Amino acid sequence: MKEIQVELGERSYPILIGKGLLNDSSLMNKFILSKQVMIVTNETIAPLYLDQLQQILGNRELQTTVLPDGEKYKTLDSMNEIITNMLSHRFSRNSCIVALGGGVIGDIAGFASACYQRGTDFLQLPTTLLAQVDSSVGGKTAVNHRLGKNMIGAFHQPVAVITDTNVLDTLDDRQLRAGLAEVIKYGLIRDHSFFEWLEENIGKLLGRNDKTLVYAIEKSCRNKADIVALDETESGIRALLNLGHTFGHAIETGLEYRDWLHGEAIATGMLMAADLSQRQRWLSHEDVERIKAILLKTDLPVTPPESISAINMRELMAVDKKAKDGQIFLVLLKSIGNAQVTDHFDNNLLAETLNSFCSGEEIV
Amino acid sequence: MKEIQVELGERSYPILIGKGLLNDSSLMNKFILSKQVMIVTNETIAPLYLDQLQQILGNRELQTTVLPDGEKYKTLDSMNEIITNMLSHRFSRNSCIVALGGGVIGDIAGFASACYQRGTDFLQLPTTLLAQVDSSVGGKTAVNHRLGKNMIGAFHQPVAVITDTNVLDTLDDRQLRAGLAEVIKYGLIRDHSFFEWLEENIGKLLGRNDKTLVYAIEKSCRNKADIVALDETESGIRALLNLGHTFGHAIETGLEYRDWLHGEAIATGMLMAADLSQRQRWLSHEDVERIKAILLKTDLPVTPPESISAINMRELMAVDKKAKDGQIFLVLLKSIGNAQVTDHFDNNLLAETLNSFCSGEEIV
Repeated sequence: MKEIQVELGERSYPILIGKGLLNDSSLMNKFILSKQVMIVTNETIAPLYLDQLQQILGNRELQTTVLPDGEKYKTLDSMNEIITNMLSHRFSRNSCIVALGGGVIGDIAGFASACYQRGTDFLQLPTTLLAQVDSSVGGKTAVNHRLGKNMIGAFHQPVAVITDTNVLDTLDDRQLRAGLAEVIKYGLIRDHSFFEWLEENIGKLLGRNDKTLVYAIEKSCRNKADIVALDETESGIRALLNLGHTFGHAIETGLEYRDWLHGEAIATGMLMAADLSQRQRWLSHEDVERIKAILLKTDLPVTPPESISAINMRELMAVDKKAKDGQIFLVLLKSIGNAQVTDHFDNNLLAETLNSFCSGEEIV
Repeated sequence: MKEIQVELGERSYPILIGKGLLNDSSLMNKFILSKQVMIVTNETIAPLYLDQLQQILGNRELQTTVLPDGEKYKTLDSMNEIITNMLSHRFSRNSCIVALGGGVIGDIAGFASACYQRGTDFLQLPTTLLAQVDSSVGGKTAVNHRLGKNMIGAFHQPVAVITDTNVLDTLDDRQLRAGLAEVIKYGLIRDHSFFEWLEENIGKLLGRNDKTLVYAIEKSCRNKADIVALDETESGIRALLNLGHTFGHAIETGLEYRDWLHGEAIATGMLMAADLSQRQRWLSHEDVERIKAILLKTDLPVTPPESISAINMRELMAVDKKAKDGQIFLVLLKSIGNAQVTDHFDNNLLAETLNSFCSGEEIV
């Protein structure tokens, strides 16, 4: 078992990575200190791992909320459903919410935990690669609003992240590839040698080579833990983790959180950020091609859906948590392995990027 | 102008109390650092103070959410309405939410501020006595759930509390009396001499004597600021501020947040807590009579509504944020000025208290 500590003073916690950890009852008992436990999961994950987890947690007051699967259910209503279940069973604020699922489940369950009686314990058991390498770490919780992604939320750190790499065996290929988009992100924003390693090993990762996957998860978590420790509430450097996200969230909101997975939208968004970086003369054409190549090799989309025009997209990008007094901030690339958050970009060049990537009505 | 500091490290802020502060634009400018400002208020307060506040805030991107008046609107839906308004106007996380109203408005607006893009600035402009002496101070924000009061919320401290005592001139008598219930609470839980002062001065307070009211507000805020500084997130001593609240919240939930004001429910709840304290042989009969006398002089209710039986009430009390693994905790009185949080009370005596105060079906 690998252990990576997220250093946040009294809110510090470990990320534990290993095979079969979902069956390790002593590990669960170490972090779940309450009798009252609410497991939050979805209809895809429940048939696979819920029974097993319920048995492991055994001698407790266990309740379960099973939500439908998908980003479009990451709503205030789903959060309220968890809370209603907890109140119906008289759960106290000393109870623990356990998120058994991917990023959507972790985000909703974490937000419910942040708000239930003003805060309960919260344990992350991520079951997708994306959740394991990114969303389960760092305490960002949220639900979506029809006008913008992750617009209602809280910073609420878990007591631990327990990553059982065995669950990747049941993950479908599309989910695996979506998770790899966020893995590639770490290389792009701050780790040039990891990006080179990914270029060499992307085939093995797609072939689910065990050791290679564990290395990628560990490396990603170390990058994320470093950044979160430096800037828990995103007043600065943490925003780098948003490479591709202003573009990507606009795609997700434009699609009403249907059809595309988060990692897919981020893949397209990262290439668009790279394209704008090149137009700004920050990034070489060759580097943009390298980025495009690894995304294509991973079979990730690199063009926004046809239903979203450049004009739509610019509109949707205006609602972004990095914006300040009406000015958009973007994460752009100085080079592979060196990203910067900036509002010093040329709006005409942004329009060029949007026009060149999007179908439909152009920005003139 | 009086200034009381709430000492919470980097989350410290002042409570400013004085006449005409709502007209003090330099004071507002000191605490509202953003161009984008969302004023949250209700249909009762808006006609009285909204124009004036909008003029004072002048040269900003101002938006307003006017909610219906009343505890029953303290819901997730109202919170979402604020968020929708902010997103529609592309408000960033650097914006400021200003609560212009009583406890209900402060609680909803504060919770919206805690959650909007994971947290914005938040300024309290309390317009009821209850909000001025209690709910605007200390960072507790929440909305109600049909199964329990304040069950969905966050600790989110304001940047300041600006209390204009002129607003009390437009406060109706019933609201004034409800606010006095929370003032009396401070005397009961930790300030015997303040309780004696209240016994002497309750007539002046009801007669709206200016100096007497300001003294009561200041004294209440000092008590609250002391306690909050010691225990921001209620892991211990802060729970004392809940004297009467387990009983009172049960009344409010039982009435579906209609008809009774919060302070009225707390008045009845405090007398019920005193009654149980007496049955526990903690409090003398004479002290219970003193408590009853000051509540009656203030024209506050001292009996639960007839629609709530003892059996209902015990059921409703089980959902309480102080409960732990199914065990209720109550704030009881050792003497006037000395309260304790405890689960060491005799359930039979609690049943006696409930049976003696409630109409309808008794607990047997």
